[in-house]
Amino acid sequence: LQSTNTINPKQRYTVRCDVQGSAIARIVGRTTKNFPDDFNSTVRMWVFEETVDGEKLSEIINTRHENVKYLPGKKLPENVVAVPDLVESCDGANILIFVVPHQFVRKICHQLEGKLGSDVQAISLIKGLAAPYAEKLGGVKLISDEIKEILNIDVSVLMGANLAHEVANDDFCEATIGCKKKAQYGAILKRLFNGDNFRINVVEDAHTVELCGALKNIVACAAGFTDGLGYGDNTKAAVIRLGLMEITKFVEHYYPGSNLETFFESCGIADLITTCYGGRNRKVCEAFVKMGKPLEVVEKELLHGQSAQGPLTADEVYYMTEKSGLSEKFPLFTAVHRICKGEIPPQDLISHLRDHPEYSQPI
Amino acid sequence: LQSTNTINPKQRYTVRCDVQGSAIARIVGRTTKNFPDDFNSTVRMWVFEETVDGEKLSEIINTRHENVKYLPGKKLPENVVAVPDLVESCDGANILIFVVPHQFVRKICHQLEGKLGSDVQAISLIKGLAAPYAEKLGGVKLISDEIKEILNIDVSVLMGANLAHEVANDDFCEATIGCKKKAQYGAILKRLFNGDNFRINVVEDAHTVELCGALKNIVACAAGFTDGLGYGDNTKAAVIRLGLMEITKFVEHYYPGSNLETFFESCGIADLITTCYGGRNRKVCEAFVKMGKPLEVVEKELLHGQSAQGPLTADEVYYMTEKSGLSEKFPLFTAVHRICKGEIPPQDLISHLRDHPEYSQPI
Repeated sequence: LQSTNTINPKQRYTVRCDVQGSAIARIVGRTTKNFPDDFNSTVRMWVFEETVDGEKLSEIINTRHENVKYLPGKKLPENVVAVPDLVESCDGANILIFVVPHQFVRKICHQLEGKLGSDVQAISLIKGLAAPYAEKLGGVKLISDEIKEILNIDVSVLMGANLAHEVANDDFCEATIGCKKKAQYGAILKRLFNGDNFRINVVEDAHTVELCGALKNIVACAAGFTDGLGYGDNTKAAVIRLGLMEITKFVEHYYPGSNLETFFESCGIADLITTCYGGRNRKVCEAFVKMGKPLEVVEKELLHGQSAQGPLTADEVYYMTEKSGLSEKFPLFTAVHRICKGEIPPQDLISHLRDHPEYSQPI
Repeated sequence: LQSTNTINPKQRYTVRCDVQGSAIARIVGRTTKNFPDDFNSTVRMWVFEETVDGEKLSEIINTRHENVKYLPGKKLPENVVAVPDLVESCDGANILIFVVPHQFVRKICHQLEGKLGSDVQAISLIKGLAAPYAEKLGGVKLISDEIKEILNIDVSVLMGANLAHEVANDDFCEATIGCKKKAQYGAILKRLFNGDNFRINVVEDAHTVELCGALKNIVACAAGFTDGLGYGDNTKAAVIRLGLMEITKFVEHYYPGSNLETFFESCGIADLITTCYGGRNRKVCEAFVKMGKPLEVVEKELLHGQSAQGPLTADEVYYMTEKSGLSEKFPLFTAVHRICKGEIPPQDLISHLRDHPEYSQPI
């Protein structure tokens, strides 16, 4: 099989077993059993240890094969083994699957520094950007680049419209793998995730795939504002479309070399649609308009301590476009940033979109 | 102004003043007043005469400037003049705007045959396909082509996410004009429709624009089935995306020369999103699954005598792909057709999508 002799993926692990991690461990537990020539049958999953009703979570998982805390009611394949020590969970692994909240990435990577084998690659499922870099580095930083910088390994990404609960229900869904060394790693990574109800495509422009996963959250904020303001389906569709156009322009300008067709993959339009109709950024921003309270207060009330990615991403993107003198070329991104900051009211969103560069195409 | 000496559009009219026609007449009434050098100030609107509370509808419109039957509560500009005679309403006009139910197009064109001036062009806002041609002509027939064949004039199209009621409310929305002679007619057509809350882009591949408007209804049927079957956001997003890919493939194969960027216009993804979340095809197909009655019965109960376009379009498209031996390349279109015909249960939709050609891209 074309890729095995190159990367020999005898083991792999899923970092941190929350709901996303557990949902993906179920997928990977199955695929690795199905392809014993390609994969070691054991999938090690790093579990941040905690106690549930007096028992250690890792022991519960390894005896009852269920993550009773984060994904109750869904059996994990028996070849998924919880390991509470991070370094031990990665010992000898060839493929690392990152599924952690984005703010933990740097710390985890530093813990692994110098402790990985020589033929290791990673794949990140984390949607978002590296923790606030805007002012230090002048803009957006991709999580895959952060992992690569610290661990010096190839990092692919997997993005798409695949909320953990639907994946865990084995509902039909899709994902896009972005892999810069597609010829070398594409087939084995596809085999690692692809299943009857989790359909995978692999593309080469990994930066585009990852940026779609991050930037869509800004667009979802705009969609939430239009919902909160009581606009109908057409206005919302226009806002989503203009947002998509800004995503394509942003990628084209700051990460040149993208392929327009990548935006037609699950990581592009499909994830954007899902996020603009069902996601938490949309929800928070709709409530922000209706409640009339500052965004932080709305987030606290609705998300129970978690924060929405969209406003943070809008902040970093604005820092970047403003510095390049391009913020006016991205009126939706800029308006979302300014609305979230309280600089302009949400009612101003539409007036900022009326003269969108999209409408100035030459005839 | 660049186009006026070429086409000198002194007059235009909106065919048939139902809700769509009246909403568009409000738009065109305003733009023509704003550009007196380009346009004759009078917009003639053909009104299929009927009596409302003992008064003629055309007289009500011309005195009270309101289409009390089809768009009550919205004032029409005073330069919009209702004309009950079709031929008279077109006399001397340079631009004809077609906004009629698709089944009336042929009859109307035949009434106008030989009675138009020499420098007349048309623009069609009709979404759908020419009345069932599949068996006679071997497939899909575009309404613009039908008008062109009978009247022998240039026909552009205007499509997009712009439901009449939102347009009439002056909510922000967009539209795409597809105009094969963009250099010649593009600017004047944009000026005729473009306003603060009705933003227009013009592209050259008019067939693509028109086909997006028709084929999206098949995808909306599939989206409705997934809703009816209780699937979540990810499955629905996957279905919408696969549907979009089939639209692009269909256009590429049967109407070559499309530009991928056109699918990013309002006529493409934006209208598709709106239709798959809010449209009547989605609604009927969701109810079809839940009620378990034949489609015709569901349509009758829900649409009060109107019919959904999606199943008809799926039928014509299937006739065409089957004849070319390509129906398996369009598994979503084919499954929708077969489900609507009662040949397979809606539950089979997903199993037909699992091995979609989209997932067989070479690595």
